Amino acid sequence: MSLRVGMIGYKFMGKAHSNAYRALPMFFPNALKPEMAVICGRNTEAVQEAASRFGWAEAESDWKSLIARDDIDIIDINAPSDAHKEIALAAAKAGKHIFCEKPLALSLQDAREMLTAAEEAGIKHMTGFNYRFSPAVQLVKKLVTSGRLGKIYHFRAWFLQDWILDPDFPLVWRLQKDIAGSGSHGDLGAHLIDLAHYLVGDLDEVIGMNETFIKERPLAAEMTGLSAKGSKDGPRGEVTVDDATLFLARFSNGALGSFEATRFAAGHRSTNSFEINGSLGSVRFDFERMNELEVYFTSDDEDVQGFRRVVATDPSHAYAEAWWPPGHTIGFEHTFIHEFLEFTNAIQEDRQPEPSFADGVKCQAVLEAVDRSIEERRWVSISEM
Amino acid sequence: MSLRVGMIGYKFMGKAHSNAYRALPMFFPNALKPEMAVICGRNTEAVQEAASRFGWAEAESDWKSLIARDDIDIIDINAPSDAHKEIALAAAKAGKHIFCEKPLALSLQDAREMLTAAEEAGIKHMTGFNYRFSPAVQLVKKLVTSGRLGKIYHFRAWFLQDWILDPDFPLVWRLQKDIAGSGSHGDLGAHLIDLAHYLVGDLDEVIGMNETFIKERPLAAEMTGLSAKGSKDGPRGEVTVDDATLFLARFSNGALGSFEATRFAAGHRSTNSFEINGSLGSVRFDFERMNELEVYFTSDDEDVQGFRRVVATDPSHAYAEAWWPPGHTIGFEHTFIHEFLEFTNAIQEDRQPEPSFADGVKCQAVLEAVDRSIEERRWVSISEM
Amino acid sequence: MSLRVGMIGYKFMGKAHSNAYRALPMFFPNALKPEMAVICGRNTEAVQEAASRFGWAEAESDWKSLIARDDIDIIDINAPSDAHKEIALAAAKAGKHIFCEKPLALSLQDAREMLTAAEEAGIKHMTGFNYRFSPAVQLVKKLVTSGRLGKIYHFRAWFLQDWILDPDFPLVWRLQKDIAGSGSHGDLGAHLIDLAHYLVGDLDEVIGMNETFIKERPLAAEMTGLSAKGSKDGPRGEVTVDDATLFLARFSNGALGSFEATRFAAGHRSTNSFEINGSLGSVRFDFERMNELEVYFTSDDEDVQGFRRVVATDPSHAYAEAWWPPGHTIGFEHTFIHEFLEFTNAIQEDRQPEPSFADGVKCQAVLEAVDRSIEERRWVSISEM
Amino acid sequence: MSLRVGMIGYKFMGKAHSNAYRALPMFFPNALKPEMAVICGRNTEAVQEAASRFGWAEAESDWKSLIARDDIDIIDINAPSDAHKEIALAAAKAGKHIFCEKPLALSLQDAREMLTAAEEAGIKHMTGFNYRFSPAVQLVKKLVTSGRLGKIYHFRAWFLQDWILDPDFPLVWRLQKDIAGSGSHGDLGAHLIDLAHYLVGDLDEVIGMNETFIKERPLAAEMTGLSAKGSKDGPRGEVTVDDATLFLARFSNGALGSFEATRFAAGHRSTNSFEINGSLGSVRFDFERMNELEVYFTSDDEDVQGFRRVVATDPSHAYAEAWWPPGHTIGFEHTFIHEFLEFTNAIQEDRQPEPSFADGVKCQAVLEAVDRSIEERRWVSISEM
Repeated sequence: MSLRVGMIGYKFMGKAHSNAYRALPMFFPNALKPEMAVICGRNTEAVQEAASRFGWAEAESDWKSLIARDDIDIIDINAPSDAHKEIALAAAKAGKHIFCEKPLALSLQDAREMLTAAEEAGIKHMTGFNYRFSPAVQLVKKLVTSGRLGKIYHFRAWFLQDWILDPDFPLVWRLQKDIAGSGSHGDLGAHLIDLAHYLVGDLDEVIGMNETFIKERPLAAEMTGLSAKGSKDGPRGEVTVDDATLFLARFSNGALGSFEATRFAAGHRSTNSFEINGSLGSVRFDFERMNELEVYFTSDDEDVQGFRRVVATDPSHAYAEAWWPPGHTIGFEHTFIHEFLEFTNAIQEDRQPEPSFADGVKCQAVLEAVDRSIEERRWVSISEM
Repeated sequence: MSLRVGMIGYKFMGKAHSNAYRALPMFFPNALKPEMAVICGRNTEAVQEAASRFGWAEAESDWKSLIARDDIDIIDINAPSDAHKEIALAAAKAGKHIFCEKPLALSLQDAREMLTAAEEAGIKHMTGFNYRFSPAVQLVKKLVTSGRLGKIYHFRAWFLQDWILDPDFPLVWRLQKDIAGSGSHGDLGAHLIDLAHYLVGDLDEVIGMNETFIKERPLAAEMTGLSAKGSKDGPRGEVTVDDATLFLARFSNGALGSFEATRFAAGHRSTNSFEINGSLGSVRFDFERMNELEVYFTSDDEDVQGFRRVVATDPSHAYAEAWWPPGHTIGFEHTFIHEFLEFTNAIQEDRQPEPSFADGVKCQAVLEAVDRSIEERRWVSISEM
Repeated sequence: MSLRVGMIGYKFMGKAHSNAYRALPMFFPNALKPEMAVICGRNTEAVQEAASRFGWAEAESDWKSLIARDDIDIIDINAPSDAHKEIALAAAKAGKHIFCEKPLALSLQDAREMLTAAEEAGIKHMTGFNYRFSPAVQLVKKLVTSGRLGKIYHFRAWFLQDWILDPDFPLVWRLQKDIAGSGSHGDLGAHLIDLAHYLVGDLDEVIGMNETFIKERPLAAEMTGLSAKGSKDGPRGEVTVDDATLFLARFSNGALGSFEATRFAAGHRSTNSFEINGSLGSVRFDFERMNELEVYFTSDDEDVQGFRRVVATDPSHAYAEAWWPPGHTIGFEHTFIHEFLEFTNAIQEDRQPEPSFADGVKCQAVLEAVDRSIEERRWVSISEM
Repeated sequence: MSLRVGMIGYKFMGKAHSNAYRALPMFFPNALKPEMAVICGRNTEAVQEAASRFGWAEAESDWKSLIARDDIDIIDINAPSDAHKEIALAAAKAGKHIFCEKPLALSLQDAREMLTAAEEAGIKHMTGFNYRFSPAVQLVKKLVTSGRLGKIYHFRAWFLQDWILDPDFPLVWRLQKDIAGSGSHGDLGAHLIDLAHYLVGDLDEVIGMNETFIKERPLAAEMTGLSAKGSKDGPRGEVTVDDATLFLARFSNGALGSFEATRFAAGHRSTNSFEINGSLGSVRFDFERMNELEVYFTSDDEDVQGFRRVVATDPSHAYAEAWWPPGHTIGFEHTFIHEFLEFTNAIQEDRQPEPSFADGVKCQAVLEAVDRSIEERRWVSISEM
């Protein structure tokens, strides 16, 4: 049995997803095989080229036509964030399983509608929090769940980038609220929030702070990935999202949380990092060294206590046997392959994948609670949302 | 000309100060020489032993007698925090120069009284924020002041320890509000706040969160440095200070700040660390590797941009020429030697040392603003205090 | 135009090569596209399964038949080392371009015959020194070639593994001289030697030392990648290769070299690391952190001199634009994709790829010179070989 | 009871020793107290100033007069290396205990004479291999001795500096064979050899290689520590010592050794580093981070194996209780304090200190064996020497 995929979107995430679909059967041959059936995008020529380059059987420029097809099992949504909701509602109605990139939607309200639609349709639904699927993060999950870190006291996390540090970097769509929904908070902070949920648990309340350091930028001529071109002397437009958002949080289990997302941290191309301190041990992770996890145990012999640098490529580590011998590392793109392994496994086993739309909703609730806490300058309980 | 010192306190800080007074003339022969005249403490026997061991000419058990002496130029206060104020007021009245360990006092009100008294007496006064005097921190100061980091966007700092992680660790004085004034916040966070003031500037407003994870502990039998003994089966008492305090802050210059102090971070014996991100570069510091500074510049050639690990032991670095050849490191105790170099230099040059009592007051204002923000669950402006 | 590939071998390297052939057109669409035509191995069933899993159009169990086919442009040899020569000679005779895994052959004599045959046939030939194709290694090459490191004084390199540290680890083929040709020296040291040639230049003379720490091991039941199973109580056989080989070398340009390859370095799953010191700067590389390069320049401002951690994922770095945004890392397998990019580009541009069989021969000459230096306990000149 | 010290030499090492004598009684009050009686040097004015600055009771310009005094118990020799022998022989004859800086002498023959004289005189004698006395190195010793690392397979060590990288750096005495005896080999390599002896055991045979990269330099006008001044346009003299020396070694217990000492490693101010791999674990040390030791154990749970960063400042670590709380580091100078603690303890306990002159002789034997191996281009057995 295989699963025929229709994918909407073909840029940064479309490339990462395509690569995952291609690699999955080779490295995880026991999983259901995703068939790269149709890739869809508004620009006919560009999507045709992407189809050819990425290995999709067909190209399509109308997503409604795609969803209407009978021979498609999965709809993969990685179009810009403002399009997620409408597509997902239609796909759910059509009974397709849905993989949707994060952020699930531009608002909590929209995200909830999407979850409800998916649940009513009885389909499998997944939100693209890919960082969960680093072997080192899987190891953290195992250490926490098994109690080897004890009771958790602290979670601190920061996602630091610097790609818009230059005041003349152009006003790309990620800096426009109506398309992106949010800036560093929704783009980067969302990943931290999901990791917090996954690894530590639910949040009770939050209070935040944000800033847009550069308030106007040259209009963008062109954008690819995170790079873009624009004329510094040309017309400028308003940046309508946050450049940085920080917040404090209290977890339901009593742990204290600290979160920071910024695009103004010079020298950090993409530092997605967290630390957890528990009563029996600690872990530290930095995605720039994604194969590694630093681990500390209070139970170590007293003269050799210290953070260990574990390279999570041993047979005992998640996914490692599918890849290369110990010490031979993997990269960013592998998180997507593992993510789609979870998705296809969940379909095969007839269970919801994790993270599902429910996790996307939960993340969105925190994002909006933080925004409200900033607007109203007060602690906001997640239960308010 | 030399300066005759009377020092009140003889434990952890008394030892560090004594060592500094002894080393100063050897490594900085051009500075005024502090004469180790009198050491003072309530326990006659113990202070006598300390005098002999640390090299003080005389021991004294009554601090009022010490202050009354004509042959003492400097009063060094490193007794427990609850004694600072009374001693400082008396010393100022007697016209002695005063070095006072941090926290300056148990309350902002007290700290202000001390500053006023010192200013009225026309003496030199200094607060013991020793971490400023790491060569690597001096390098940060130089980079910031000269504009080499550009406009500052972010300051994030954390002081992480784990010495009370064990729930049976006894209820030492540092865990009692009436003596210590504060827990991790005043003990560790105070250092971070001072570094923020020194390196980035004043804060506008703050909001915090704290927690006492372990609310009762065995009564302490004995304490030395940060270690102590107690019976886990004996009587217990209430912990009246915070185990951890976190807060967010907005600087007057627009930078965003994040601060965390905790004694519940397993694996961190004493991680006193900060990062500053500016428009032209970033720096990272961790006191456990105090000889090093990581530095990033946006102006580096584009194919070799990255954080540099600078070992601050070259002739171009502060204090380095007094010590050992490049690459030969110094330690914790050296920060005190440099601190007293500033103190004696200030006396010699007839100027106030930095950090003075005014800096101690400024730090105390932030500490209390954070406490108020926690109590009242709202942002608190420093100007309210 | 595309290139039809016939690949002989289907295990660890066969998997890595297959992945590279699949990924190449997607990430480097302007390169010639390799067609995955035929995979070949002796075990009909296993090779059939590999064909299906890895995506080859056909499976073949007789390599001579494969070579005899007219519709094959490239022969990719990753069968065990003892089969390389015979296959390569036949492939050259048949006019196929050849990619051959390292070590090129079991002896220098054999390697030279292979090179001669390839040159006489006028085909393109390449040796699989994949580590050259890490972006960070490419950056080193650029820094050296452009003179930014100045005159090179030192090259020190070590390839440390620990997979046979357990004395009961079985006697796999890699521990048998008649199949593997060599132990750590030919397997790991060969990579270091090639990097030395590539980055610093030719060697003049060498002297070495080796050891087989564990001289007998249980016979192996089964082997996959670097792991294997065997019964510790069953029959044992002699280990006929080196567990560790170290050597010193003098480069023709006057630099001094130090090389170490071992499989007995506890804690090192696969540390492939080198450092180069020149008159104007230094670089350090460790393949376990393959996206990073540490770089030092003597010309940096004197107060901020230090090794920079460059993450080689910026647009200015080799291959980076084909992959993900800055800070999003790649892994071990990507070196093979870049390697086959060089191979197909060389065919397209009608030039020899680098490293060619000539580089394989040069590496083999050093390997044997070291062996001779060990046997005869004297410095051996490469020109003797 | 105290010990009256007469110290000959007052520059870099004289300063380090003076500091150690001053600090010892304060931090190790139970040890015999060294009395800083007489400091001796040829330049009357300079030595008088040193006496005053470092805290010596008297200054003396004639070392023979010093040795002739009855009121001196210990002679501390840190004059230039070419003066060691004559002074030591006289001091031994006079029945003084002797502390001598490394290298013990300019030749093995001289070193042996010194050892014989010391043994015949029945005095305590010590050689100044201070790096043994880092807490982290003490931890290595404990791990090796207790068997926690198992059988040792590899010792690799490198001492890298860059202070003479500039071809115009002047011809200081350390670059002149008649005064210094040796270059990087005797200055830096000697420390590595002593650590090898201390931590792994005796060497059987060695083979080396060396180079003087810059063969002529401007004559030196002035030298302090490792810095110096000279005119690049003035007269030049020949460098008569090695800029770099590397050698391979076989230990008597079967371990393999690799050693490198160089002053031409750009970016390394003073990297004194080694790694030991055993059958049960490994350790890594770098003196630039002297408070840390990286430790790996094969017995760790399989999913959390990795090198631990141990900060050797806990109560379980050597010397730590004398200093500061855990996580509060010490520096280069502390190795001397611990070294003199061993010296005075040995005197008090009437045993030879370690390392004694015998260790100095053993180190010298290896140094000369390496030199002979270079000259004669062959393996040289230590037993030949």
